[in-house]
Amino acid sequence: MSKIILTGDRPTGRLHVGHYVGSLKERVALQNSGNYDKVFIMIADAQALTDNAEHPEKVRQNIMQVALDYLSCGIDPNKSCIFIQSMVRELAELAFYYMNLVTVARVQRNPTVKNEIKQKNFEASIPLGFFSYPVSQAADITAFRATTVPVGEDQEPMIEQCREIVRKFNEIYGETLVEPEIVLPSNKACLRLPGIDGKAKMSKSLGNCIYLSDEPDVIKKKIMSMFTDPTHIKKDDPGHTEGNPVFIYLDAFCKDEYFAEFLPEYNCLEELKEHYRRGGLGDMTVKKFLNNVIQTELRPILEKRKMWEQKLPDVYDILQTGTKVAQDAAADTMRDVRRAMKIDYFDNDNLLKLNA
Amino acid sequence: MSKIILTGDRPTGRLHVGHYVGSLKERVALQNSGNYDKVFIMIADAQALTDNAEHPEKVRQNIMQVALDYLSCGIDPNKSCIFIQSMVRELAELAFYYMNLVTVARVQRNPTVKNEIKQKNFEASIPLGFFSYPVSQAADITAFRATTVPVGEDQEPMIEQCREIVRKFNEIYGETLVEPEIVLPSNKACLRLPGIDGKAKMSKSLGNCIYLSDEPDVIKKKIMSMFTDPTHIKKDDPGHTEGNPVFIYLDAFCKDEYFAEFLPEYNCLEELKEHYRRGGLGDMTVKKFLNNVIQTELRPILEKRKMWEQKLPDVYDILQTGTKVAQDAAADTMRDVRRAMKIDYFDNDNLLKLNA
Repeated sequence: MSKIILTGDRPTGRLHVGHYVGSLKERVALQNSGNYDKVFIMIADAQALTDNAEHPEKVRQNIMQVALDYLSCGIDPNKSCIFIQSMVRELAELAFYYMNLVTVARVQRNPTVKNEIKQKNFEASIPLGFFSYPVSQAADITAFRATTVPVGEDQEPMIEQCREIVRKFNEIYGETLVEPEIVLPSNKACLRLPGIDGKAKMSKSLGNCIYLSDEPDVIKKKIMSMFTDPTHIKKDDPGHTEGNPVFIYLDAFCKDEYFAEFLPEYNCLEELKEHYRRGGLGDMTVKKFLNNVIQTELRPILEKRKMWEQKLPDVYDILQTGTKVAQDAAADTMRDVRRAMKIDYFDNDNLLKLNA
Repeated sequence: MSKIILTGDRPTGRLHVGHYVGSLKERVALQNSGNYDKVFIMIADAQALTDNAEHPEKVRQNIMQVALDYLSCGIDPNKSCIFIQSMVRELAELAFYYMNLVTVARVQRNPTVKNEIKQKNFEASIPLGFFSYPVSQAADITAFRATTVPVGEDQEPMIEQCREIVRKFNEIYGETLVEPEIVLPSNKACLRLPGIDGKAKMSKSLGNCIYLSDEPDVIKKKIMSMFTDPTHIKKDDPGHTEGNPVFIYLDAFCKDEYFAEFLPEYNCLEELKEHYRRGGLGDMTVKKFLNNVIQTELRPILEKRKMWEQKLPDVYDILQTGTKVAQDAAADTMRDVRRAMKIDYFDNDNLLKLNA
């Protein structure tokens, strides 16, 4: 059986360093590993519309931004198929039929759904489309016969719900769909980064993100303003590295060789941390180092982005070509699904068998 | 503006006299009235699957039966477009986007949904697809820009929910969809017939229906076994005509001229009823008369049905042609919807306007 990846992002904003260390870096590694026959990367505009129905313009504008971020990070359109969700109509169609296989109560029990409803302050006024997104996600995954879905642990209940739908479908209509496996981040680089203000999550609305598309001076300003250890008031005070955003970012981005280049007094991150913990190391020194590290890591991404920004029609072509590939793959699955469900009336003469 | 009708039935069984007097007869009249530019009649297999997901074969087998019933009753494929719902993929797609405009709480408050959930004993285990069927129905109606939906009073909350979706869509995305009007049955012929056992609803599972496809001897046997007035024990006892299925059926089917032909002792139904009420009229006499009336009314329908049964490939063609017409109409609406929602990315160069 082919090994196929499905993954993606909601185009509600440009992607930031949290996305980069949390998933993009891993995705590029998976893409280049040679272990997968196909990689589908979905710009999930239809899913974004489930809770942004009133802001279609915001979603539309961010499709290109997300595509640029992908290409800048090393997603290679020759190896990965980047496509736009809403352009693959079979995804809505599959979701429509899967909805018959899931009870309202089962979705209500989904911990990820519960959590998202709480986070978004929906309470009683959840849009039905948003409520149903585990089913829609199952459609996205199975449409491409994905075997592998690389996501964070918090998404595990979603994949489990998808597997339930697959099992139920295959049980009723015969073996048709592929049960996906979750692949959790393999290394510590796939951390969840806090915002620069120390809040647990980076979010556009909180204004606490470093974007992959930020200019070097913007990045520097953001890093210099970062929240650190509030108990580390004077340079000589002992400091905490755990839970300290500056050190979490260093955990994600720092390599030993950066010390020789930017901070030769230390050999590795652990030495730097020890000094900070025992006191005598100022936040400014650490932030300046972090700035050098992040600038070095993000520079090639930003350069690539600027290159692609000059070639928007090429990006458009990549999206259009990828979408065509995705459409064909999904149409193929939809044909199998219709055959299994016996709703392929005009492809055979079953309708003519009155008492078959 | 064009006047367009959308109506239809779930193909979960052959149609019966309840369907005939409740909707089919009225539909044929509307079709022939010359007041409507287009009439779409939908065989709602996708909706039937929302609570028959495990019985696709039952749904498939009844598509042809319902089509035969339509043609036998006088639905004219040259005037009305008969089509199969699941073959019009845009209906699932529209439903998918409308789901973002309706809250879970709003659907829960829909009295028709509440009632259906109770009737079907779903309680906590309602399939999400079934729960969402008001939204799906709104997609069916609006896809054809229907101005007119002829349904019973019990469906009024569904049409109201559709109108809400239309208003919300047009408010957010600009004037795109047409708000439908409900048309309630115009005359007393559009009664709701009870089952022959006196139960309020005819239902296949209760075995209390007279089907349009029943042979004359089967119809006779059913009528002779009909539930009447349980207090009318001896012929001379006074009887009740109200709530008495035999008289309700006569209300629906009897014309004065049938008396001259089959029961010349009376001039009209009111005379017959009076006699029954004051006592002295036996159930057998009334049932024999009802049998003659119904046989006369249903004979041309059955004859037409037998003719069409010999020409199943023609019926198949009618369905295929009608479905093509419906597909084109729905695709046209879907194009407008995508344009309005700005998810028509590849039909213009909006994606290239990064900061539009």
